[in-house]
Amino acid sequence: MKTIDLNADLGEGYDDAAVMPFISSANIACGVHAGDAETMRRTVELCIRYEVAIGAHPSLPDRQGFGRREIRIAPGDVHAVVLQQIGALHGIARAAGAALHHVKPHGAFYNMAARDRALASAIARAVRDFDASLILVGLAGSASIDAAREAGLACAREAFCDRRYRADGSLTPRPQAGSVIEDIEEAAAQALSIATRGEAIADDGSRVSIEADTLCVHGDRANAGEFARRLRVALEAGGVRIGGPQRP
Amino acid sequence: MKTIDLNADLGEGYDDAAVMPFISSANIACGVHAGDAETMRRTVELCIRYEVAIGAHPSLPDRQGFGRREIRIAPGDVHAVVLQQIGALHGIARAAGAALHHVKPHGAFYNMAARDRALASAIARAVRDFDASLILVGLAGSASIDAAREAGLACAREAFCDRRYRADGSLTPRPQAGSVIEDIEEAAAQALSIATRGEAIADDGSRVSIEADTLCVHGDRANAGEFARRLRVALEAGGVRIGGPQRP
Amino acid sequence: MKTIDLNADLGEGYDDAAVMPFISSANIACGVHAGDAETMRRTVELCIRYEVAIGAHPSLPDRQGFGRREIRIAPGDVHAVVLQQIGALHGIARAAGAALHHVKPHGAFYNMAARDRALASAIARAVRDFDASLILVGLAGSASIDAAREAGLACAREAFCDRRYRADGSLTPRPQAGSVIEDIEEAAAQALSIATRGEAIADDGSRVSIEADTLCVHGDRANAGEFARRLRVALEAGGVRIGGPQRP
Amino acid sequence: MKTIDLNADLGEGYDDAAVMPFISSANIACGVHAGDAETMRRTVELCIRYEVAIGAHPSLPDRQGFGRREIRIAPGDVHAVVLQQIGALHGIARAAGAALHHVKPHGAFYNMAARDRALASAIARAVRDFDASLILVGLAGSASIDAAREAGLACAREAFCDRRYRADGSLTPRPQAGSVIEDIEEAAAQALSIATRGEAIADDGSRVSIEADTLCVHGDRANAGEFARRLRVALEAGGVRIGGPQRP
Repeated sequence: MKTIDLNADLGEGYDDAAVMPFISSANIACGVHAGDAETMRRTVELCIRYEVAIGAHPSLPDRQGFGRREIRIAPGDVHAVVLQQIGALHGIARAAGAALHHVKPHGAFYNMAARDRALASAIARAVRDFDASLILVGLAGSASIDAAREAGLACAREAFCDRRYRADGSLTPRPQAGSVIEDIEEAAAQALSIATRGEAIADDGSRVSIEADTLCVHGDRANAGEFARRLRVALEAGGVRIGGPQRP
Repeated sequence: MKTIDLNADLGEGYDDAAVMPFISSANIACGVHAGDAETMRRTVELCIRYEVAIGAHPSLPDRQGFGRREIRIAPGDVHAVVLQQIGALHGIARAAGAALHHVKPHGAFYNMAARDRALASAIARAVRDFDASLILVGLAGSASIDAAREAGLACAREAFCDRRYRADGSLTPRPQAGSVIEDIEEAAAQALSIATRGEAIADDGSRVSIEADTLCVHGDRANAGEFARRLRVALEAGGVRIGGPQRP
Repeated sequence: MKTIDLNADLGEGYDDAAVMPFISSANIACGVHAGDAETMRRTVELCIRYEVAIGAHPSLPDRQGFGRREIRIAPGDVHAVVLQQIGALHGIARAAGAALHHVKPHGAFYNMAARDRALASAIARAVRDFDASLILVGLAGSASIDAAREAGLACAREAFCDRRYRADGSLTPRPQAGSVIEDIEEAAAQALSIATRGEAIADDGSRVSIEADTLCVHGDRANAGEFARRLRVALEAGGVRIGGPQRP
Repeated sequence: MKTIDLNADLGEGYDDAAVMPFISSANIACGVHAGDAETMRRTVELCIRYEVAIGAHPSLPDRQGFGRREIRIAPGDVHAVVLQQIGALHGIARAAGAALHHVKPHGAFYNMAARDRALASAIARAVRDFDASLILVGLAGSASIDAAREAGLACAREAFCDRRYRADGSLTPRPQAGSVIEDIEEAAAQALSIATRGEAIADDGSRVSIEADTLCVHGDRANAGEFARRLRVALEAGGVRIGGPQRP
């Protein structure tokens, strides 16, 4: 039976409780692009209650831009930036009796790492230097995954159920019409196709191979809870088990 | 032979390199009232080079006020605030191959904990929940020390060489004339008196008992490096060994 | 015909567009406790489109606490803090061809000014030093109103439709049961009673006199838009005209 | 007699009082990349005391990077960002009985405007929309100056006494050896050459034409006060009068 992870970015000021019952892993903002100590604590406790895997969601140091602005950063500085954020969440999780399970970079950090191998390697080394058993989440087929493997880390390849793919496996850029799949049923169908057949229908109608271990549920979309619920129902009805990414 | 610790608050934007050769423990800002990931990393590396004990210097969440404003905070929130900051520094230290040694609250957090037992207990529990082997630094004779002991933590009682004491052992409030000892020799003499005889001369001329394990060197005063050097020379000339606070 | 103003705090990250059609004045966050340049610009443009009076909503310098924490601040510092924020919004309004109409302090700043005459006077002087024709909004019957008058400013006395009053005219403190009037019809009835008869029913059942020029619509409550709409309908049905506060 | 302006970036946490007696115009941080209301107020008062022209020093919205990181920003957003900052300083200056005289963008904002005409135009339009009589300061010979003129603003062309120029009039990039002129006498000589002959010696030994109305004094270099003093003495000894930039 095929297993896939459903992850969501949490602790960012959206309605976390709505999606929590339906996901299997959470990426928690570490107080840099969003959140604070109390938000982290509450989100960690929600994860414990719902048995959701706890992950850090480190960002570029850019609160004013919510971590969405691409800012040039020296690979040397990336190391400390990632460690500070993993450490902060680790501190709160540890006191709550929980352990970190994975790390997924946020926003511009995630996108830059997907195409910049030096940056991706700096992130991977920071994760490994903190705890070599952590799983690194990155865009399926990108430099992030290569860097994680080179650093000896287990990794989870991420795909998107509500983003359109291009024939080469990259995401249709956001400003473009049709880049976001608004219809829940259509998004659920893409999720099921990725989970069971490892493929999606690209924006030119061709089939594109997408090998993924985890699917992103956007917590900031309208009706995120309902979206997550129907996604989970569709996947389970299709014979897919939902579960956090595993180390080999 | 009597041993005492010389500690300084670092990573706050002052000239850390100047005092580093003369101190035995550092309290490093954790990116909340001051500092950022890169500052923490550089300060940790300086500590490693000079064999200075590394400690976290957590603050109230108040960047705009540099952690110096007294802000009411629920004991329940204190726990997460302290853990976030210890964790952040721990992350950076761990990757550098170093371990945290102690925790000293910053500014208004320190002052409030010295007189508010509930707040002091919340801080002590956070430290213990992170790592029960960490030493908690607090004002000698204050609620901070009682709370640390109650939580089962080792503690270091802090005294000040360049602050004047009152006959009851409290510090002469800052706005008052003579509350700060500007003259280096006079401050060094008070330090030596506290370290060797456990007493200081109060502002009314009487002798006051001050039992201390660590002395604070203010890194933000003019000529902080020269001040630290002469303080250390005076203590060593008086037969005192300088060394980080120890667990019993 | 009786006229009353309906005001809301905007530019704070809630759904401003929902309440905008129903209010007559807006208090816009100035980038200190919430908001940024772009938020201010968009909110000013919404105000122009809906012909809503534009006001500044200055806060204590406390982003981390959303301006809700009571922080001690010297009256001397209040002056600059208020001017910085009025000025920032003025800059954006001016370029959009609009002028500021009033100032309403935010959160803890508002509450502290209501009872601390020295603080209230510092705020009033800052408003007057910027533009003596601005209207200062404060809690009806509080020190804020006295200070505004003493500074020679026009003022708008604020009352709350969804907060319960005590027999002495003060607000029932929030932690207390029944302090917030959740039911829309009941809140609308209190609004109408204040607007037409200058009184409300206190929590002990007695009648309490509330003279008000403006009623606050909380933009952060659930269904704020629907609440504002029904409030306006009820007031107009009761013969009250809705309009921004006027200078005498 | 030739007149030139000496300007410095102030309110950024350096020792403003040291350079104030020697400069003729100040660019004051507006609380975004650095500074706060109280810093602005104190710096404005220093300017009034020393009869130094008061200017706004707006930055990209990037506190964590001190406005030194190049961040992509839509020209549409630039307008509000600049207005917010000019307005904030204007509010404080106005209450102190002073008026703004000029605007000089900060750090990465300044550098990006020097080469990106669309960004430079957005800045110039914001300045003009606030007050068309303000002078816009930009890098001599750059897109900033062209944009200011197109917007109908008076402008002040800035040159650097302690930066080395290349034969084409651009600045030798900072990482390169010799890009900063450390020696005060050599910097003073370059300042005098620019002020009196409109030229400097480029890094290849050739003469390069530099037409400038204002010279930047870096307030963040070591001994900034002494540097400013000797620079002024050298210019005045060479027959140059020091005075703020004038509108035509």
